[in-house]
Amino acid sequence: MLTIDLNCDMGESYGVYNLGCDEEAMSYVTSINVACGFHASDPSNMLKTIRMAKRHGIAIGAHPSFPDLIGFGRRFMAASPEEIKADVIYQIGALAGLCQAEGVTLQHVKVHGALYNAAEQDIQVATAIAEAIKAINPNLYMLCLGNSTMVTAAKNVGVKYVEEAFADRAYTSRGTLVPRKEAGSVIHDLAQVAERVLMMVKDKSVISIDGKIVPIRVQTICVHGDTAGAVEMIKAIRTMLEIQGIQCSAFGEER
Amino acid sequence: MLTIDLNCDMGESYGVYNLGCDEEAMSYVTSINVACGFHASDPSNMLKTIRMAKRHGIAIGAHPSFPDLIGFGRRFMAASPEEIKADVIYQIGALAGLCQAEGVTLQHVKVHGALYNAAEQDIQVATAIAEAIKAINPNLYMLCLGNSTMVTAAKNVGVKYVEEAFADRAYTSRGTLVPRKEAGSVIHDLAQVAERVLMMVKDKSVISIDGKIVPIRVQTICVHGDTAGAVEMIKAIRTMLEIQGIQCSAFGEER
Amino acid sequence: MLTIDLNCDMGESYGVYNLGCDEEAMSYVTSINVACGFHASDPSNMLKTIRMAKRHGIAIGAHPSFPDLIGFGRRFMAASPEEIKADVIYQIGALAGLCQAEGVTLQHVKVHGALYNAAEQDIQVATAIAEAIKAINPNLYMLCLGNSTMVTAAKNVGVKYVEEAFADRAYTSRGTLVPRKEAGSVIHDLAQVAERVLMMVKDKSVISIDGKIVPIRVQTICVHGDTAGAVEMIKAIRTMLEIQGIQCSAFGEER
Amino acid sequence: MLTIDLNCDMGESYGVYNLGCDEEAMSYVTSINVACGFHASDPSNMLKTIRMAKRHGIAIGAHPSFPDLIGFGRRFMAASPEEIKADVIYQIGALAGLCQAEGVTLQHVKVHGALYNAAEQDIQVATAIAEAIKAINPNLYMLCLGNSTMVTAAKNVGVKYVEEAFADRAYTSRGTLVPRKEAGSVIHDLAQVAERVLMMVKDKSVISIDGKIVPIRVQTICVHGDTAGAVEMIKAIRTMLEIQGIQCSAFGEER
Repeated sequence: MLTIDLNCDMGESYGVYNLGCDEEAMSYVTSINVACGFHASDPSNMLKTIRMAKRHGIAIGAHPSFPDLIGFGRRFMAASPEEIKADVIYQIGALAGLCQAEGVTLQHVKVHGALYNAAEQDIQVATAIAEAIKAINPNLYMLCLGNSTMVTAAKNVGVKYVEEAFADRAYTSRGTLVPRKEAGSVIHDLAQVAERVLMMVKDKSVISIDGKIVPIRVQTICVHGDTAGAVEMIKAIRTMLEIQGIQCSAFGEER
Repeated sequence: MLTIDLNCDMGESYGVYNLGCDEEAMSYVTSINVACGFHASDPSNMLKTIRMAKRHGIAIGAHPSFPDLIGFGRRFMAASPEEIKADVIYQIGALAGLCQAEGVTLQHVKVHGALYNAAEQDIQVATAIAEAIKAINPNLYMLCLGNSTMVTAAKNVGVKYVEEAFADRAYTSRGTLVPRKEAGSVIHDLAQVAERVLMMVKDKSVISIDGKIVPIRVQTICVHGDTAGAVEMIKAIRTMLEIQGIQCSAFGEER
Repeated sequence: MLTIDLNCDMGESYGVYNLGCDEEAMSYVTSINVACGFHASDPSNMLKTIRMAKRHGIAIGAHPSFPDLIGFGRRFMAASPEEIKADVIYQIGALAGLCQAEGVTLQHVKVHGALYNAAEQDIQVATAIAEAIKAINPNLYMLCLGNSTMVTAAKNVGVKYVEEAFADRAYTSRGTLVPRKEAGSVIHDLAQVAERVLMMVKDKSVISIDGKIVPIRVQTICVHGDTAGAVEMIKAIRTMLEIQGIQCSAFGEER
Repeated sequence: MLTIDLNCDMGESYGVYNLGCDEEAMSYVTSINVACGFHASDPSNMLKTIRMAKRHGIAIGAHPSFPDLIGFGRRFMAASPEEIKADVIYQIGALAGLCQAEGVTLQHVKVHGALYNAAEQDIQVATAIAEAIKAINPNLYMLCLGNSTMVTAAKNVGVKYVEEAFADRAYTSRGTLVPRKEAGSVIHDLAQVAERVLMMVKDKSVISIDGKIVPIRVQTICVHGDTAGAVEMIKAIRTMLEIQGIQCSAFGEER
């Protein structure tokens, strides 16, 4: 039986500020990436998110970032690999501590925003992240963009990893993401997105923006829960997968 | 054989800012309280401090604080018990993660500054801290001011704890600290401080500011390492203890 | 002709986080209190808020706070009067600079949250704020809770001030606010609130929670714009005032 | 009579953390660049620095930065020109407010660290800074690296500016700074540095690292005050200039 994980960023509220439709989206995803206080969230919001995930029975990952609350971690910062490694361990540890307090285990680590983009392109950054994960807990999975530098780093360092594909993003014929600035880079049609996800899972491939069938490796699909429309899309994806007899479960679970 | 622990705040540098004589003081103490980024320190400095402690073979504790970097955690903040609990777990987790990365275990938690003062007086605050410690790791010791509300909270919650006395502070005849604002509250004479520590350890008592012999419970002595003069005092204390045949070792060790 | 000012907290968004119905509420108020980055907002959001206020032709005030972004400035902090004075000047200066860049002048200063509550009760805190305002620009008004310690401080220091009443809050027979924790402290009925505001403006009095007519001094009414319901309330107040022939204009304007 | 300004970064202490020999260095410089809270300093330390400069009768400039306290503003951040403009106005305004409170006027703006480096190379960044300065106060000077993109931006925007040279840095034959990573980029010999400064001021030229005489434009010389050795260097420079009959005074003063 085919299985797939659906991962989604969550726990990005901060103090009095609310962000995202966490409660709604948790009904449809199987793994979440929880902000750790550097680009969003704070200890109280992190705890609230962990409790919510526990109720929903879904897997939890850390979502570390550059230290940039004002910029929501979306601005590249020229941090050294040593700084990134220490920052990532700190953030994973903080979330892992809150998980321990709630009696749940951490499944994975997916870096956020500009740090994710840097890790995709810069082997030193990706290696610092992989080393951080292995150092703090070798049972954690590193969530990597499929076929990217992050995978290379995970292999080199010897950390467990899974590869992700993006439900709503267009791909080039080389299997990389079409940059967000380019026309057609983001797909908004629910049915089309659900169909693409199905193809990713069943055929391990995607139709590129120029019409080619491109093979991809995918153990988890990245979806979004920040708006009501985004939650509708997750629901459509999940429904389609279940209709097709594909099991949705966290990648860290025994299958 | 009598044994005692000497604990000292460390790892309070921040970014380019240096604070404290950590390297020098580590030669004479047996346990350190490492700042966790809320009143001082950052992930890179925390890692550096852990590595230094590892080289010196001394025990490590977390030193969580109110979130007040500008005020160095010395300003009381009206945080709720729930906020304090989440903040303390976050900080312990972050430091524990960095310790795991270095292959060392965390021994204890001692809260910092205004949070320590609040915990001394407010059972709700002390309870939130004790609960945080027990929730994240029941093997951790809570470092409490001897005979204070912190001890009551530790007992109520059922967390392991040790009681501390202050090497250089005057005591009242009720066994409480003479407030810092009052004349004679801090003792600066090295020989006198060393003698007092000896009496604390051997006789489990202290001479109060008004000349009475007051019994105290003490498993660890708080010393300071922020100036060269402070390090001289630790050295004098350690030397005196060893001359008298008292063993200095971390309280978490098998004795 | 009777005139009154309606003031409202605004510009409390932060980075990607949105808070408040600023655009809607600006149609009905005459003065706004703009967050300065210590409890909410950031330079880009402050600039956006100033531009919006400029388009609406309404007056701008600074809304300084304790430095507590996570707690939204609602948690008391034991800052010294000297620290408060420096912090308040810094925040006013920052906002005044952004106003200068947009060619608008600053009208007033109203402190936020826990700092407002502290200033109500502690003459040292209120004096530090009054001195900060006078030091940076003696043309600025200090916005004070009517008949409070803040007014005393403003008079002592010699800074211009206005007194405010709260549209939706119950008053005691001594003319002070009924604490939020007590039943009936906040009035939710639109018509009732509008009637009370009318009485405040026309009769300079309010009906206390125990049914007495209590005289109050009021040059500005505090209203809220954080929810759609709150904006409805401002609209009801404004409509009632205009029907009754009362002019709504900023207190700093020539009348 | 020849005149020159000597500028130095100051006010970079933060909370309890001390940095720099401000008091000593102020005896020898004529202008200072005061940190504004984004890479260093806080309102209380800024106020203290302004008072010190006032006592010494030296000119004050703002020293804005990327928002990166942990990295001391030395890490490039991919902030947009709009964000940089708002951030720079905010920081200038905050410092200007504290200067107003002390009855002194602001002379100039010199951006810090990674923001300075970005402004040297990226006309969009340099333009955002020039626009920020002009918008908040057209009387302020923009302090630019001589002959750099910053000068181009200042001219384009129409803001007053001065060009600076570095006392202790080697120059290429094109008049640019030899990057810090390269051997010989920083000159440590006091006598040699003083001689170079003298040549910069008298001959408006510098000997490049490969031995050529290179013309430079210079109205202010950048010196450092962060260590006792650095202060010795400023003293040597100042002494040499005065022996040679060159007047040291702030560039903003009538000459």
